[in-house]
Amino acid sequence: VRALAAPDALLDAARGGDRVALARLLSVVENDSAASRTLAAATWTAPPAFSLGITGAPGTGKSTLTDRLIAAALERFVADGAERPVSQVGVLCVDPTSPFSGGAILGDRVRMQEHALDERVFIRSLATRGQHGGLSVAVPDALAALSAARFEFVIVETVGVGQVELDVASTTTMTAVVVTPGWGDAMQAAKAGILEVADLFIVNKADRPGAADARRDLAQMLDLGAGRRDGWRPPIVETVATEDRGLEDVLDAVDGFRGHLRGPAGEARALARAAAMMRKIAAAGLARSIDALVSTPAFDAAAAEVAAGTTDPYGAVAALLSA
Amino acid sequence: VRALAAPDALLDAARGGDRVALARLLSVVENDSAASRTLAAATWTAPPAFSLGITGAPGTGKSTLTDRLIAAALERFVADGAERPVSQVGVLCVDPTSPFSGGAILGDRVRMQEHALDERVFIRSLATRGQHGGLSVAVPDALAALSAARFEFVIVETVGVGQVELDVASTTTMTAVVVTPGWGDAMQAAKAGILEVADLFIVNKADRPGAADARRDLAQMLDLGAGRRDGWRPPIVETVATEDRGLEDVLDAVDGFRGHLRGPAGEARALARAAAMMRKIAAAGLARSIDALVSTPAFDAAAAEVAAGTTDPYGAVAALLSA
Repeated sequence: VRALAAPDALLDAARGGDRVALARLLSVVENDSAASRTLAAATWTAPPAFSLGITGAPGTGKSTLTDRLIAAALERFVADGAERPVSQVGVLCVDPTSPFSGGAILGDRVRMQEHALDERVFIRSLATRGQHGGLSVAVPDALAALSAARFEFVIVETVGVGQVELDVASTTTMTAVVVTPGWGDAMQAAKAGILEVADLFIVNKADRPGAADARRDLAQMLDLGAGRRDGWRPPIVETVATEDRGLEDVLDAVDGFRGHLRGPAGEARALARAAAMMRKIAAAGLARSIDALVSTPAFDAAAAEVAAGTTDPYGAVAALLSA
Repeated sequence: VRALAAPDALLDAARGGDRVALARLLSVVENDSAASRTLAAATWTAPPAFSLGITGAPGTGKSTLTDRLIAAALERFVADGAERPVSQVGVLCVDPTSPFSGGAILGDRVRMQEHALDERVFIRSLATRGQHGGLSVAVPDALAALSAARFEFVIVETVGVGQVELDVASTTTMTAVVVTPGWGDAMQAAKAGILEVADLFIVNKADRPGAADARRDLAQMLDLGAGRRDGWRPPIVETVATEDRGLEDVLDAVDGFRGHLRGPAGEARALARAAAMMRKIAAAGLARSIDALVSTPAFDAAAAEVAAGTTDPYGAVAALLSA
């Protein structure tokens, strides 16, 4: 029966805490189809979860950090009696280099086992989605789906590679960039435009030599930068994730940024995020129209005329688009 | 007065052999504006020049090969009394890695000097064009402009880097891939998908050790491939461009492919090229509409509603697009 469940029923069940329904919901949203877009639309008006992006070069320890933060966040946010205690933590693992999706990545399986008995944790991998918009649309849609399922805190772990990393950073509420001791990482971050999107720097493996240097290098780069328009200076914290050291500092920084976002900066960010998502949706939709256009007999006929030199390609396209 | 010349007048002057007008025409076409697209459209119904794309990794000697082929082609095609003797040769230098355009690239300046006294030769660099479509639209438009100016043979020299290389290959009548002795180049060609688009392989610097090996490697790769649907097997020729060796073999291969294209393969190719150009034009046009859409007050208002959670981004975009 569940296999045939209508999207609406899935959404209701996911809202009610049904994890199998939630997994299916994400699978639907992950696809690029008219049905998935309708369902995604239905999830978008829920109050958005606070999402923490964790990005950085391979080997910086992002996965371990994410694992330990799950536990720390549940304890901290549940325990500290904040305005809205977090009762469950979602994790989205984004790997644009992987052809797999749906939780098939090795690292997740390991984590699945670790957190398997904890009903407050939901972990999901996102890889590629169709050809239109791809991950840059799938990640915000997945966040919206988790928000609709009443998640209030979601960690989005991204492999730090180029455009996807920046795309995800524009999607999450806060972006933490993980580096390890050594000048190289900081330089790479600067080169890739990551300095501009980072709300927090985490120097992980800080028990290695050079942690203080890395911290100083990052601080200098921030000093050299023009400063952010929203007035937030990204904190730099040191962690040793494997030993649970520094996690409280990370959560303090999250709390600090959360407070910052209660001001006008939060509104500006929400607006920018909405506009970016709308732009992506428009672009994906127009890409679909092009695909539809080029597979019509009228397009083939017009191409034949262009090939024969009886019309020009600009005029032919204009005629097709106005028809 | 010339600075104010209308596009139509430019086109007429270029057709009449005015090289300054032709240079201006290409500058207009190179830009991304409504005027440039109107002008480009006007050039497209001329009989297309035969264009030979020359691509390959840096250091394979493409520039020297192009230089020597200019002279050889003028002699051969003018002299051999073929159906339509070539009276002038155009050269487009495409360098996607260069921010310069309009003939500012060093290699061209050298060539300019070499061919400066030869009125039958016209050399032009193309770098970036606007943001919509960029070089993938600018190159076919420049070819159309040269065709309108009665050029019948154009060499398009491209730095062999990724997508642009493949884009240009889909634009030219014939694509020659230049490699040097050594297995590396052939492997790289296979990896980059170049084997599929090559109509001719040129093993340049063939006086170096390993030329026979390179030829054999390429032949084996062609054997391993599924074979081309159009029945053409790309010849493999050896050249030493610095000594003018092998140029006749290249021109023989061009003649052979020209003959091949007189059959159904030529029609299929012209159709594919027209369809590809139309697709690029449609994509560039839709990208412009997105830019226009996101800069309207209505878009800002809708984004504010999405940010406030009173509507979803999919619905908002649909409403904007239907308005």
